[in-house]
Amino acid sequence: MTRFALTVEFDGTPFMGLQRQPHGPSVQQAVEDAAKRVTGEEITLYSAGRTDTGVHALAMRSHMDVAKDIDAFRLMEALNAHLRPDPIAVTACEVVSDEWHARFSCIGRRYLYRIANRRAPLTLERNRAWQVPQELDHAAMHRAAQALVGQHDFTTFRSVQCQAASPEKTLDLLDVERVGEEIHIHAAARSFLHHQVRSMVGCLALVGMGRWCEEQVAQALEARDRQALGLNAPPDGLYFVAAVYPEDAT
Amino acid sequence: MTRFALTVEFDGTPFMGLQRQPHGPSVQQAVEDAAKRVTGEEITLYSAGRTDTGVHALAMRSHMDVAKDIDAFRLMEALNAHLRPDPIAVTACEVVSDEWHARFSCIGRRYLYRIANRRAPLTLERNRAWQVPQELDHAAMHRAAQALVGQHDFTTFRSVQCQAASPEKTLDLLDVERVGEEIHIHAAARSFLHHQVRSMVGCLALVGMGRWCEEQVAQALEARDRQALGLNAPPDGLYFVAAVYPEDAT
Repeated sequence: MTRFALTVEFDGTPFMGLQRQPHGPSVQQAVEDAAKRVTGEEITLYSAGRTDTGVHALAMRSHMDVAKDIDAFRLMEALNAHLRPDPIAVTACEVVSDEWHARFSCIGRRYLYRIANRRAPLTLERNRAWQVPQELDHAAMHRAAQALVGQHDFTTFRSVQCQAASPEKTLDLLDVERVGEEIHIHAAARSFLHHQVRSMVGCLALVGMGRWCEEQVAQALEARDRQALGLNAPPDGLYFVAAVYPEDAT
Repeated sequence: MTRFALTVEFDGTPFMGLQRQPHGPSVQQAVEDAAKRVTGEEITLYSAGRTDTGVHALAMRSHMDVAKDIDAFRLMEALNAHLRPDPIAVTACEVVSDEWHARFSCIGRRYLYRIANRRAPLTLERNRAWQVPQELDHAAMHRAAQALVGQHDFTTFRSVQCQAASPEKTLDLLDVERVGEEIHIHAAARSFLHHQVRSMVGCLALVGMGRWCEEQVAQALEARDRQALGLNAPPDGLYFVAAVYPEDAT
């Protein structure tokens, strides 16, 4: 068996998330089905993160074990050929050691959240950003976000379906910037709770709209209560952008 | 009657172009239908440019004359409400004088062509860029493009269906740059022939791939013969980005 590390890009709009679901299409199922057509084997895809319905990935990292004698480039090309017409692409593929695990070796995850801050409905960016018509104060959003950086109990920002053993996480970065008519929110941590990025973005948007003062974000965090959440942002604007591994740090 | 100037953004994928067609959906028909629902009037939309099936617009400029007493902001909001779910949005709307004409007052048009220069199929950018797997030499493309700048007979770069009286046009700018994994081609002129940008881009791509030497672009121009065209690039990567009017120049 050879272990291949894959970099996977996808438009999450038509999928019920990355992980296999009994009731609908998933990215995992599409890639595993393509891998079976390429190799004839029952292959399982392991990935650095889980993503919800409608969430996108620019560079998800995954791995699969393959018995067939095939090199990394040919595997990537064959997977891409069999993935059509699904909006999923393998953008990189390499052989890794059997110890390398896309999920368990991963020491950092990065997300981008895009808000289209405009009145007009979205056209080319539909399903690719959250449209917020009120003018957002991105500087206030950035200041308020800093209360969430560091090690905290993120119960407020956690889905009731979250399966993590602990609500304690260390958020390494939460930066808010304006890029033209868009607001970009960058989040980085070793790992995140279910809905954590969307929940943080939702509350920051309330600050940006002036409906919350900046201190309310810190108060929501301290409440450790899902009921204290102001707003959960929709999935459309969320992108998994990078997974970090120990070898990347050298 | 009040004349309103509109800025219109659209995803061209589901339309048979901007202008009304007898056989399928068009941006013009969608906007005119929305305007009729808002005003009760039979309204004609005039636009700075024509675009083909699958070509997009970031900021098409158009105008319409309305008898109903309505201000520009309310007209814009009402048009956008009635345009759903079509991927068309009015991003700006203002009252202009009856002498202002979106097409005939326009003194400059600008297009962007996006090439996704990568092996992997497109996902989030599907229908929004031309995927070219071979690595493109963007510097050679830019050098070759300069032979097309200026006043020329562009017969080679003109669709056989082109209805312009003369094949002579003055190309003000044709710049090629690399932006990450994309190649962006910027074109500006007072006006363009039918398929001119796509035809120029197709030949520049041949240069970028090394299938044409740089001089062949100039030779194709001098041939003044549609048969000398190397390649017509697909519509997916083409965006109408701006129309220029005399008042903008001041």
